[in-house]
Amino acid sequence: MKNTIRTAVILVCLIFGSTLASAQSANEIYQVSTINALLQGVYDGEITFKELKQHGDFGIGTFNALDGEMIGLGGQFYQVKSSGQVLPVNNSIKTPFAAVLYFKPQRVAELGAVQDYDQLQESLNSIINDQNYFYAIRIDGLFTYVKTRSVPAQSKPYRPLTEVTKTQAVFEFENVRGTVIGFWCPKYVNGVNVPGYHLHFISDDRKQGGHLLAISLLSGKVQIARITNFRMVLPGAEDFRNAALGKDYSKDLQTAEQ
Amino acid sequence: MKNTIRTAVILVCLIFGSTLASAQSANEIYQVSTINALLQGVYDGEITFKELKQHGDFGIGTFNALDGEMIGLGGQFYQVKSSGQVLPVNNSIKTPFAAVLYFKPQRVAELGAVQDYDQLQESLNSIINDQNYFYAIRIDGLFTYVKTRSVPAQSKPYRPLTEVTKTQAVFEFENVRGTVIGFWCPKYVNGVNVPGYHLHFISDDRKQGGHLLAISLLSGKVQIARITNFRMVLPGAEDFRNAALGKDYSKDLQTAEQ
Repeated sequence: MKNTIRTAVILVCLIFGSTLASAQSANEIYQVSTINALLQGVYDGEITFKELKQHGDFGIGTFNALDGEMIGLGGQFYQVKSSGQVLPVNNSIKTPFAAVLYFKPQRVAELGAVQDYDQLQESLNSIINDQNYFYAIRIDGLFTYVKTRSVPAQSKPYRPLTEVTKTQAVFEFENVRGTVIGFWCPKYVNGVNVPGYHLHFISDDRKQGGHLLAISLLSGKVQIARITNFRMVLPGAEDFRNAALGKDYSKDLQTAEQ
Repeated sequence: MKNTIRTAVILVCLIFGSTLASAQSANEIYQVSTINALLQGVYDGEITFKELKQHGDFGIGTFNALDGEMIGLGGQFYQVKSSGQVLPVNNSIKTPFAAVLYFKPQRVAELGAVQDYDQLQESLNSIINDQNYFYAIRIDGLFTYVKTRSVPAQSKPYRPLTEVTKTQAVFEFENVRGTVIGFWCPKYVNGVNVPGYHLHFISDDRKQGGHLLAISLLSGKVQIARITNFRMVLPGAEDFRNAALGKDYSKDLQTAEQ
């Protein structure tokens, strides 16, 4: 099985290792808040999309009051509402949690058929290799099956994310052209961002999308950027100050991501 | 006891809360590598002090091959060797781990007598309050007792930090004027930096210093900056790529810090 996956991945370009550390704003992740804060219900928007866009043209996240799933791609930002509707994001909307960057891929690979999310992760693992770095990931392809979710806007007092995701809306798409985008984060940023893969999806016609739950793929192109620069801005708001952010929420995170 | 400590701390200035998030380079921590990498023996210098100084005038860290303890203060950077000697840092030396910033204090407090490190931390806790942020800390004062350590330069293959600190040099100073500098980091950055207080010391005559192990203080002035912006640069070197950074090294860290 492993060999099949390996051969399905054809590396077209290899990484430009030596230029990594000198990269300035390209491939520097700009992150708003922390995943632990989101898990604890810190959903008040901190930074407008107008400001966020100054730090990247690519990324994922959510919206003020947890109003859906965010996808940023080629400078266009989209909001997947819990109704399933996909809207362009207004610059004045704020985000309580997002990670963006100016995406400059350093590795390109062709993907053959991928059966499920596990197999996709194995394929990506074989490209990524050095798991102590961050990676930005983009997969354009023909997807035979995609399952996503989105979350409904919340009102105060906010409940923890694991409570909200119990009421998440789930969407299934078949034979759809689109793009998977997101990140690999190293394990040691547990508490700060999602360790491992965190991927969102948007269709080519920009009418379907969400936080990725399941996937199968006929063929696609993977583009990956290794990230050595990470930047984080912490919210000044009361609810962030008072949240219990120091505990290990790994299990909550696992629940909330699925 | 707690009341005594509280009354010993007189807040002179309060934080300018609303200006925090908009701060650009002032009070943005710039960190090289991660504490887990240092614990695992990733001691090869990544960034020169010439470059490091472009990101701050204040900070702590170490040197290529773990050759001593670093203190940066008012734009001057010092190296406390394991011989006890304190040297100005040459711009061409590299660091494998450091955190610096342009220090703009937002809180100033007068400290009365402080018996020991625990009591100092309690005093600082009463100023810091919101423990979900980073804080840069500077204490100028007359210290009745200071105990520091430094570590000897290592050769390859590098041993983990807990092995090296078994051979650390320990220094004791009495009735010395000097400065304690360092950081408070929130618990959720465990693996990235040192959660809690991490402080170094340097004497006014720049002849004594090191990583702070014990302290008592007659009187002093505390200056504190709350940090909402955090930036990290990961090394591109082989030993960082291959290090096992994903485990919980909290106990090793505790051992190495003492």
